[in-house]
Amino acid sequence: MIKAGVVGGTGYTGVELLRLLAQHPQVELAAITSRGEAGTLVSDMFPSLRRRVTLRFSEPSDAPLDGCDVVFFATPNGVAMHQAPPLLAAGVRVIDLAADFRLKDTGEWAKWYGQPHAAPEWLAKAVYGLPELNRLAIVGAQLVANPGCYPTAVQLGLAPLVESGLVDLEHLIADAKSGVSGAGRKAETSSLFSEAADNFKAYGVAGHRHLPEIRQGLSRLAPRPVELTFVPHLTPLIRGIHATLYARLVAEGDIQALFEKRYADEPFVDVLPPGAHPETRSVRASNVCRLAVHRPQGADTVVVLSVIDNLVKGAAGQAVQNMNIMFGLPETEGLWHLPVLP
Amino acid sequence: MIKAGVVGGTGYTGVELLRLLAQHPQVELAAITSRGEAGTLVSDMFPSLRRRVTLRFSEPSDAPLDGCDVVFFATPNGVAMHQAPPLLAAGVRVIDLAADFRLKDTGEWAKWYGQPHAAPEWLAKAVYGLPELNRLAIVGAQLVANPGCYPTAVQLGLAPLVESGLVDLEHLIADAKSGVSGAGRKAETSSLFSEAADNFKAYGVAGHRHLPEIRQGLSRLAPRPVELTFVPHLTPLIRGIHATLYARLVAEGDIQALFEKRYADEPFVDVLPPGAHPETRSVRASNVCRLAVHRPQGADTVVVLSVIDNLVKGAAGQAVQNMNIMFGLPETEGLWHLPVLP
Amino acid sequence: MIKAGVVGGTGYTGVELLRLLAQHPQVELAAITSRGEAGTLVSDMFPSLRRRVTLRFSEPSDAPLDGCDVVFFATPNGVAMHQAPPLLAAGVRVIDLAADFRLKDTGEWAKWYGQPHAAPEWLAKAVYGLPELNRLAIVGAQLVANPGCYPTAVQLGLAPLVESGLVDLEHLIADAKSGVSGAGRKAETSSLFSEAADNFKAYGVAGHRHLPEIRQGLSRLAPRPVELTFVPHLTPLIRGIHATLYARLVAEGDIQALFEKRYADEPFVDVLPPGAHPETRSVRASNVCRLAVHRPQGADTVVVLSVIDNLVKGAAGQAVQNMNIMFGLPETEGLWHLPVLP
Amino acid sequence: MIKAGVVGGTGYTGVELLRLLAQHPQVELAAITSRGEAGTLVSDMFPSLRRRVTLRFSEPSDAPLDGCDVVFFATPNGVAMHQAPPLLAAGVRVIDLAADFRLKDTGEWAKWYGQPHAAPEWLAKAVYGLPELNRLAIVGAQLVANPGCYPTAVQLGLAPLVESGLVDLEHLIADAKSGVSGAGRKAETSSLFSEAADNFKAYGVAGHRHLPEIRQGLSRLAPRPVELTFVPHLTPLIRGIHATLYARLVAEGDIQALFEKRYADEPFVDVLPPGAHPETRSVRASNVCRLAVHRPQGADTVVVLSVIDNLVKGAAGQAVQNMNIMFGLPETEGLWHLPVLP
Repeated sequence: MIKAGVVGGTGYTGVELLRLLAQHPQVELAAITSRGEAGTLVSDMFPSLRRRVTLRFSEPSDAPLDGCDVVFFATPNGVAMHQAPPLLAAGVRVIDLAADFRLKDTGEWAKWYGQPHAAPEWLAKAVYGLPELNRLAIVGAQLVANPGCYPTAVQLGLAPLVESGLVDLEHLIADAKSGVSGAGRKAETSSLFSEAADNFKAYGVAGHRHLPEIRQGLSRLAPRPVELTFVPHLTPLIRGIHATLYARLVAEGDIQALFEKRYADEPFVDVLPPGAHPETRSVRASNVCRLAVHRPQGADTVVVLSVIDNLVKGAAGQAVQNMNIMFGLPETEGLWHLPVLP
Repeated sequence: MIKAGVVGGTGYTGVELLRLLAQHPQVELAAITSRGEAGTLVSDMFPSLRRRVTLRFSEPSDAPLDGCDVVFFATPNGVAMHQAPPLLAAGVRVIDLAADFRLKDTGEWAKWYGQPHAAPEWLAKAVYGLPELNRLAIVGAQLVANPGCYPTAVQLGLAPLVESGLVDLEHLIADAKSGVSGAGRKAETSSLFSEAADNFKAYGVAGHRHLPEIRQGLSRLAPRPVELTFVPHLTPLIRGIHATLYARLVAEGDIQALFEKRYADEPFVDVLPPGAHPETRSVRASNVCRLAVHRPQGADTVVVLSVIDNLVKGAAGQAVQNMNIMFGLPETEGLWHLPVLP
Repeated sequence: MIKAGVVGGTGYTGVELLRLLAQHPQVELAAITSRGEAGTLVSDMFPSLRRRVTLRFSEPSDAPLDGCDVVFFATPNGVAMHQAPPLLAAGVRVIDLAADFRLKDTGEWAKWYGQPHAAPEWLAKAVYGLPELNRLAIVGAQLVANPGCYPTAVQLGLAPLVESGLVDLEHLIADAKSGVSGAGRKAETSSLFSEAADNFKAYGVAGHRHLPEIRQGLSRLAPRPVELTFVPHLTPLIRGIHATLYARLVAEGDIQALFEKRYADEPFVDVLPPGAHPETRSVRASNVCRLAVHRPQGADTVVVLSVIDNLVKGAAGQAVQNMNIMFGLPETEGLWHLPVLP
Repeated sequence: MIKAGVVGGTGYTGVELLRLLAQHPQVELAAITSRGEAGTLVSDMFPSLRRRVTLRFSEPSDAPLDGCDVVFFATPNGVAMHQAPPLLAAGVRVIDLAADFRLKDTGEWAKWYGQPHAAPEWLAKAVYGLPELNRLAIVGAQLVANPGCYPTAVQLGLAPLVESGLVDLEHLIADAKSGVSGAGRKAETSSLFSEAADNFKAYGVAGHRHLPEIRQGLSRLAPRPVELTFVPHLTPLIRGIHATLYARLVAEGDIQALFEKRYADEPFVDVLPPGAHPETRSVRASNVCRLAVHRPQGADTVVVLSVIDNLVKGAAGQAVQNMNIMFGLPETEGLWHLPVLP
């Protein structure tokens, strides 16, 4: 059994992580910390866990985190870079679900996150945890940077095209739509039901923190840096990301075959048949990414449709997938739930 | 392994049953029939099942149903009473998720379902499959009538009061609210998104088919027939029933203790602490019923709040629970998924 | 033209009031105050008002409120009782959309609102602004207490029964369901989209502030104090209240005729034909209350269904209706918008 | 007073047209036809119109349509081309809200709508009713083809760029998202609440009927035919379209100023300040289109955000705007309702 700790379990990523870990046959939940909720039963905050998760939130300082095999950080950005290093020094393996270790360039990190990075030495050692693009490095990693939700959907959808050399790498477009749980459980006016329901809007068009992460990830697959226009939107779903991706062909190729071959052995990436339109609900509450490829009117613009559940493949599920890889378990262990539809 | 067949797998109850059976460790899915969709891959209709359920829908006449250990009917009302008897005669065990075998009185059945009953001899033998009220009879049953969704939520919420003799049995009130999936997957104007979203309404106040079922079920627990005012409402959820139940006390008693004791050993009924308000999402995609008991202002009206997922505890999950009981499996086998929240 | 001021225009009640006043042919919007947003263009906060409302929020101290004919308070509870008295003393007429002047009993007010009342002399003079029950008193009122949203739906639905003497006044039941905008625009976790969408729950069963208001209002229509069980629920609508009301008959009468006669001359109360089920969307964005009356199975329990838009007839629209009455305008002036459906 | 008739008033476009016409100060509703609902009170089908619209649906053959000044067709595609010509011959002016007269090329029309065009002579005479691009022609038109919902949002958003010559006309991209009311009131499984709620998907990527309409409209503004990739999506709103438009700059220019100048005198097009993100709800139930222009990271891709209410500016409201223009009324007459927010 893997002894697992969770730092910051009161947000949506945290509760989803608890749902998955509590049902994982190889995991023993050892501790969940929350500064604000120390002493509270986890199941008092999340009644969905009643009679199944009996832990209480504990003070970070009191929690036996250094006795864990792995600690997940489900904290706001900027926390793990301060609190993870002592655990790492003690030999604990860490998976950070926030953005602290995602960008390799400390200058870039500081620019997008508005503060200097507190642990640049660990930033250098951190492994980007997108298994389908980076599996081998994850096996031996001590510190995994779990990708953002948009970056997961966008990179899985564009990777085969970028690797193939068939498309113009300087004018990629990612028009992405996210459910509201992506904004977290923090009380903010813009996430209120009466603001977000029956409403649709773009946001962050001038620049979103997931842009440099996507650019960095895709550039590693290409002979030169890629350029991307990334427009995120808020849509009245609880869970789900739908990325609609546009790339201009610069050479001919069988795009459908390219995708099918690229992901043939991936348990969590499902390439749909030609002409299909994946729905977000077809992956709801599961760790699956579904992709479809189109070339409308036979013109030179390829359209890729990519859907994930932002809380699972876009966050907690991917973190568990990374844990499975790090600890030599079957990659699908504890992640084999069927999507919930309707 | 239990060989299971499903008749009519194209509705919401059917796809939910497939989701649960496909993940059940003791079940082998042998056949799924659909007259209209014979030959279609189940996963082409429900992409959520892609790469996990490889069956095709088959013609009822071609399906090896009589070689199954158990056959589930997820058909419209009036189908199972015609198609189940030959299977039953062949020794197959049957769980009907429709209403064909729920009412004991054939006259009452004919009145509410608008046709004479086609198999009154099986109606007499059928066992009402609400395990928490009728477990012993289910063990040896060959034919189980799986309860309706409203009747499940209402009976679990009122049973302890009715059994206790503490309340006026002639003026019970059940104000129940259901998500739209309760209306099924049939294309009807009233179930359209643009009709049902951002809208709330009562329906069937003059008389709903679940009324005689509730009345029959509760009357079995009481010294005399109970009388009930039942008002169902449509609320913009996909899944979920919330029943708000009102009963007038005619004697004093510790209602909280009554409920806790009544359901102490039930794996799927969770009595919340005093003062709680269960949410439908706290049971989403799970087989759990959560209950809370109130006595506002200390007056003589007791208020019980009861929530279930109408497709799980209110339909497919309860059917699997009944199967587990019928075949001597642990009652929670294949039903131990945690609720999906948010 | 009536010069109107609005204190606290940044919540949902405030923006709805602005929508109605900006389109009212006899009103000139003179000032909108907000301590937190002073200087901001109203239409920067609410882009729906762009190019139509050109005012800026102003500091309460700077606003020419005492030069207004009428000032609306769309503030949190406990503000108007401090800020309205000087305006009232200056001869300004005031309509308070909060709860400050709704309860006549200062002890009761203090108990439910957790503080002593700051202006008991004005509490005594305030007129309860439910026109259909209290029109004559509103005509000459200087200070109107605009009713709560639940109390409007519940009182309009129960008033004919209470007045008639046909029902048991000690066991009325109001099972009420509200859209989330009723919780206001304040950033609170429980009002987040990801908490309230696809979810249904009761709240405040032990006691809600609208209970004493309903009790007070209905008791004025009866020979003795009425007793009521009031259970509010949160439903995933933006706007809308649906109250399902239960009363036990103690004498016979034609209930349908009773309701039709009672509201025959009311422009904003619509009694539906027998057997109907009003939908919340049938009154969306309008000042109408629609009612239907049922007597299921001919038993002695009457069921009344009552729907309003909580922000219009339950708040801002009713405030404008009160203003029309106070200033001798046709009651429907500026309130004659058709509901928005779908 | 303009005598107006409506053919086919039972869909969402029809009921929205009724809402607008019933409140229009210069219109008298003379007849509403429906083959299936002849004899039914309009307000029995749409209770939102109770006590305000007293007409009954009538048989098309019985309705006094040829005595009308204007007849609106809110019928499925393929009806108006058969039924409008006799009325046109009788001198009645016609506004078709379906697609029958939108495409100028009969071959193109036949290809996209799957049947030969029945009235090619009227197709040639029809005027495309997008006032902001074609106002002068509408003034004298006898037959107006009211634009599709997507084409309205997309053309208003791209027109200034296309006219300016600043962008690559062969690689425009329109990523458009529509609320479910755009699919109409027909009972179809894909429009069910339980299918469309909490779900997001693209559809028709291979080719949507609005593509040739957009291409035709934009090409008229350009020196040569434009090429466009158009990807529509279904999003869980009732009303609203959000089009995210991408164009590659081929020359420099002040895009913000370009848009502001282009629409400076338009009552129904609102160009937001730089950096803004229009929301669909900011135009809900109103005839307004709001636009914002971005140039992310200063690169050569321009992003335009365009929102409308698909039932108003995308259908019924635009039809009334066209009527106002045709009959010499102020263009905003009867269309000056403020958006409903929240």
